[in-house]
Amino acid sequence: MKTERNADLLKRAAKVVPNGMYGHQSTAMLPGVTPQFFARAKGTYLWDYDGNRFIDLMSAYGPNLFGYGHAEIDAEYVRQLGEIDGATGPSGVFVELAERFVDQVTHADWAMFCKNGTDATTMALMACRAHRGRRKVLIASGAYHGAAPWCTPLPYGVTDEERAHFIYYQYNDVESLEAALAKAGDDFAGVFATPHKHEIISDQEAPDPAYAKAVRDICDGHDGLMVVDDVRAGFRINRDCSWHHLGVEPDLSSWGKAIANGHPISCLLGSDRAREAAGKIFVTGSFWFAAAAMAASVKTLELIRQSDYLERTIAMGDRLRNGLDQVAASAGLPISQTGPAQMPLIMFNTDKGARDLALTYAFSEGMITNGVHFHPYHNMFINAAMTDQDIDQILEAAETTSKTLPDLSTYQMNPMAKAAFQARLEPAPA
Amino acid sequence: MKTERNADLLKRAAKVVPNGMYGHQSTAMLPGVTPQFFARAKGTYLWDYDGNRFIDLMSAYGPNLFGYGHAEIDAEYVRQLGEIDGATGPSGVFVELAERFVDQVTHADWAMFCKNGTDATTMALMACRAHRGRRKVLIASGAYHGAAPWCTPLPYGVTDEERAHFIYYQYNDVESLEAALAKAGDDFAGVFATPHKHEIISDQEAPDPAYAKAVRDICDGHDGLMVVDDVRAGFRINRDCSWHHLGVEPDLSSWGKAIANGHPISCLLGSDRAREAAGKIFVTGSFWFAAAAMAASVKTLELIRQSDYLERTIAMGDRLRNGLDQVAASAGLPISQTGPAQMPLIMFNTDKGARDLALTYAFSEGMITNGVHFHPYHNMFINAAMTDQDIDQILEAAETTSKTLPDLSTYQMNPMAKAAFQARLEPAPA
Repeated sequence: MKTERNADLLKRAAKVVPNGMYGHQSTAMLPGVTPQFFARAKGTYLWDYDGNRFIDLMSAYGPNLFGYGHAEIDAEYVRQLGEIDGATGPSGVFVELAERFVDQVTHADWAMFCKNGTDATTMALMACRAHRGRRKVLIASGAYHGAAPWCTPLPYGVTDEERAHFIYYQYNDVESLEAALAKAGDDFAGVFATPHKHEIISDQEAPDPAYAKAVRDICDGHDGLMVVDDVRAGFRINRDCSWHHLGVEPDLSSWGKAIANGHPISCLLGSDRAREAAGKIFVTGSFWFAAAAMAASVKTLELIRQSDYLERTIAMGDRLRNGLDQVAASAGLPISQTGPAQMPLIMFNTDKGARDLALTYAFSEGMITNGVHFHPYHNMFINAAMTDQDIDQILEAAETTSKTLPDLSTYQMNPMAKAAFQARLEPAPA
Repeated sequence: MKTERNADLLKRAAKVVPNGMYGHQSTAMLPGVTPQFFARAKGTYLWDYDGNRFIDLMSAYGPNLFGYGHAEIDAEYVRQLGEIDGATGPSGVFVELAERFVDQVTHADWAMFCKNGTDATTMALMACRAHRGRRKVLIASGAYHGAAPWCTPLPYGVTDEERAHFIYYQYNDVESLEAALAKAGDDFAGVFATPHKHEIISDQEAPDPAYAKAVRDICDGHDGLMVVDDVRAGFRINRDCSWHHLGVEPDLSSWGKAIANGHPISCLLGSDRAREAAGKIFVTGSFWFAAAAMAASVKTLELIRQSDYLERTIAMGDRLRNGLDQVAASAGLPISQTGPAQMPLIMFNTDKGARDLALTYAFSEGMITNGVHFHPYHNMFINAAMTDQDIDQILEAAETTSKTLPDLSTYQMNPMAKAAFQARLEPAPA
């Protein structure tokens, strides 16, 4: 696999960007062969600068729902760009899109648009606090809600005071949720929940319906607001808010990533119960009212409503999961596949059930070398442009990879990842 | 002036958006005739849904630098969109754009891209704190640095603790800056400065070179980082960071709005002194690495370098300022024009020199009715698509407006604005 041109770009980037790259798309913690830069994207495929083609299981870390460069969606973006995009006020498509979201998502009576997923979660946080002027917000320990000072996963540049009024509970643990509520006392403002537990490296976990119901009951019983952070999972679990099938509707939900198939827009949706609070907070951004991404989102919602994208991505995810189980069983590799099939986290364990990072990294490296962008520790995303043939190719790559694994006793996994993740997986010595 | 279709859109919006609209582009505080929604934008013109055309002095609140729907810039966006936009990693244009910024802006040794201006100021804040692990950041009282909990101008949804480590000083006041530094003690992390004082309603103020130099000296002498928040003024004052002509270079500068002529991208630039700190913080966003807005920014930087846009916007601003002075003098109206001519704040005073809100609002209303989008309390932005003929039309509108002003003793100015701004302008009774 050629990597020279990617390496050249990395050298140039190292001069003009701190560490050469930053954020969730940095390849610093990925297998060394992973390309950092891509020259072209179409459907479910990526091409790097060295001419390598990849079937992309990451889907841009979520935004790619219908395929890269989707003709109809991009045409709407370009058409709207020719009329009006960002201007001194929004266009009528702002109203239309808000109406479409209210139609589409059961709990939503209103919408507010923004740019980052973090904008949508930050607005939800502020609305919780503005609701009754209370401060304590209950958040599941380890859950990712964005990269602002109040929520970014690394401690650098963050003060303790910025997190003074969060109380952390254990996901799916009603007892721990109630203990957090008790701590909040009469300063209780609301609860954040993720649709399912989807942190890096850890097994993903479906929501326990009793937990979901407890979140709702606590917010009802104590006049707080309930938030579902649907930035990552929105429209990938169902065509509504991700807890809709549990019969649990939040007061607020945060959306981003896939809502315009990759065009830059996110949003906060809310029920009438949260309308007054949302109307009090001052939040805005220079590009939040731009019309082109809204027109792309209108078209995306139309495809979400009218196409079988959801059933297809689930079916593809199931085929992939079953196929990988078979490949792993044949090779005697203890595979760990968790999360919804269309948002799979795929790692490997040791015979004794502990996470096997070296095997996981070696497998990911093999998959990349064999033309599949396969993430070793983050959940992946099946997009609707993926075909049976693509799944077959992924399974072929998996078979080849499993038969050509390096000797793990001498395999050099990414040393930065090893340092960061070993500590996370193994309890510190007593 | 017809307003029916705008009113219809407002009615629909009121159902599906809290207050019908939010943020800096809400017309709730503007004269009642101001259209909230626009159907089309081209060059320096806006068209609303009732068929009214406006010469737009707001330029999208800053992003419109070369004209709406700029053919060359938008063509670059669309070309890049066809190759790769948001994907599982950035494209090579990410590296190219970082190199262009480093070439263009004297203090910059590196760049990090993001989406909102608030992202770029928040990253600057986090970098200040990550630099030496200190917390106290000095911020000019009343300066707008964005709409996150740490900086949003309204108190709703914000906790005191989120601002526990800011020390506020008076802009242009070296003594107050030094007092703030003394308060910070050995927890001093850095200083935020705006290129010039550009808050709403207040007269704009140029930076005192002694103040600018003091900010630099304090950061050098006490190992803090110096930030220029160039989100609003960037590339409108000169082709470099806005304090370059004062001979004062920051460690960090935040940019947004005009850097891609309205396409959604912002950035943090930094010197080598701030590289390590910026490399430590974890910041990211789903759409931050998207290539199309970066390609548009590359083209915008090319136009910034090669065209006379800056001299033209200054010349247009000067013509407008001089012309309005004459119109106002003829009509006996005490006009207040402050700030750089290309970023003018234009309001009216009473004969005794106090701010005359009713006259200001009546004048703004007249200008809008006569086809000029003219803001009563926020600085405006001249864009490079504006021509001498447009300035002539604006001046004609001003003359008509000044001759047809309503009786101010009975004029009903926007009651929400009156309630909010009277309190701000008049000292509270002792």
